[in-house]
Amino acid sequence: MTVATLGPAGTVSHELAARLYGDDIELLPTIRAIIKRVASGGAKGLVPIENSEAGGVGETLQGLMEFDVSITGEAYMPVRHHLAARGDPARLPVIYAHPQTHEQCSVLLDGLGVEVVHTSSNAASAMAMQRESRAGAVVSETAARIYGLPIAVRDVQNSRDNTTRFVEISALPREIAGATKCSLLVDPELDRVGLLADILAVFARRGINLTRIESRPSRRGMGKYLFFIDMEIAEGWREAKEELKSMTTVRELGCYARMEVPI
Amino acid sequence: MTVATLGPAGTVSHELAARLYGDDIELLPTIRAIIKRVASGGAKGLVPIENSEAGGVGETLQGLMEFDVSITGEAYMPVRHHLAARGDPARLPVIYAHPQTHEQCSVLLDGLGVEVVHTSSNAASAMAMQRESRAGAVVSETAARIYGLPIAVRDVQNSRDNTTRFVEISALPREIAGATKCSLLVDPELDRVGLLADILAVFARRGINLTRIESRPSRRGMGKYLFFIDMEIAEGWREAKEELKSMTTVRELGCYARMEVPI
Repeated sequence: MTVATLGPAGTVSHELAARLYGDDIELLPTIRAIIKRVASGGAKGLVPIENSEAGGVGETLQGLMEFDVSITGEAYMPVRHHLAARGDPARLPVIYAHPQTHEQCSVLLDGLGVEVVHTSSNAASAMAMQRESRAGAVVSETAARIYGLPIAVRDVQNSRDNTTRFVEISALPREIAGATKCSLLVDPELDRVGLLADILAVFARRGINLTRIESRPSRRGMGKYLFFIDMEIAEGWREAKEELKSMTTVRELGCYARMEVPI
Repeated sequence: MTVATLGPAGTVSHELAARLYGDDIELLPTIRAIIKRVASGGAKGLVPIENSEAGGVGETLQGLMEFDVSITGEAYMPVRHHLAARGDPARLPVIYAHPQTHEQCSVLLDGLGVEVVHTSSNAASAMAMQRESRAGAVVSETAARIYGLPIAVRDVQNSRDNTTRFVEISALPREIAGATKCSLLVDPELDRVGLLADILAVFARRGINLTRIESRPSRRGMGKYLFFIDMEIAEGWREAKEELKSMTTVRELGCYARMEVPI
């Protein structure tokens, strides 16, 4: 089955999709377009959901809230960024970078004191640099190769452990065999004091580990939130899920396993 | 005292700062530069911390983690975005928009099917449009006026309730008289099952309302988070804070009141 992911050619998403799925890849310009494509059937999708430096990817979380898709796998991709430049990086008039990439490379970029202009993807940064003879860009190895850009400084990410977690999404709601984790979207429509504490206690009482909890605006006004909760599958997890459903509105986003990334 | 906020002229930050503080305003190019400036003394700062559509502002949360500044006030600013264009918006080759603005106006922008190029601020979008005769931009009323851009479609934000919450930051750690809310940064250095549930129970047991909880990467590797917690000041809040400190690492970011925004 075709896998839709974030283009243009040379994004980290593209590189990961090629390693996981081979050639049957469709590159789309936005995360929203990928999730929409998957919801309409006929393709799986691969989208970034969080980064170890920059946090949750808002566009993905928003898309999961809006469209009826399931998470059917996750993959962890080490992320290395390089500064492409045709001369002294400190004398560049401008450096192109994706906002999340900028956050992941903030130490070096902010230290240089060069104006950083944000783009829509790392590949878009590469293309912007290609068009201007004096500009620089923060790009992946693959993007530098595809767009023929010289790398001036390698590994400009703040942390050597910089990793992006991706999720595979599909139109069919299903529980994958061998699943180790489930993602839930909790909507406490009527908020009250202590509701979130009670929600978390459902898992704590059973010794079930939550690997992540992230609040997102409900878009019903300032101060009203939804919660993305990831739980590890362990004894009592189905009961915990049912108890939670008796307390508040819960959407099951999927139960899935980690996909190994071929080198 | 000078107030540092996000420039260039015409950003929502600039407009709010002018209404709250008058003329003694210093416009800086990034949120990180503002927080750094405040930490080094001699200026207060005004920065966006969350938006009712797009969620937390990563750069601000990251800056609060890194620099020794206090929150000394908060303000809620209704946000209206307009599409500036010199002809039919559907026929624009490109529309410039800040990534958060894009999220706040996703329904109209994604519906148009025009390529959206991200910029570093709403004012930067206006300036990018000014340089290209055929481009469009999503801008504020003030930016459209300053940069002389014709508004083609008014109020392109997804929601009429679109609001951004700003915080005032200062170098001096202090508890403001008349404070109604406190912000805490909790760092559960050693994670264990149920720790977050126990943390929230400290407040729930005392009937203390938490208005917001947001996880952020600790930058100590994937899957390790810090939590920003906002609590309402109510009976027992000092005891709750002390009990929390006995359980885990807590930084008090400040106790403060809401500032009324003059029209």
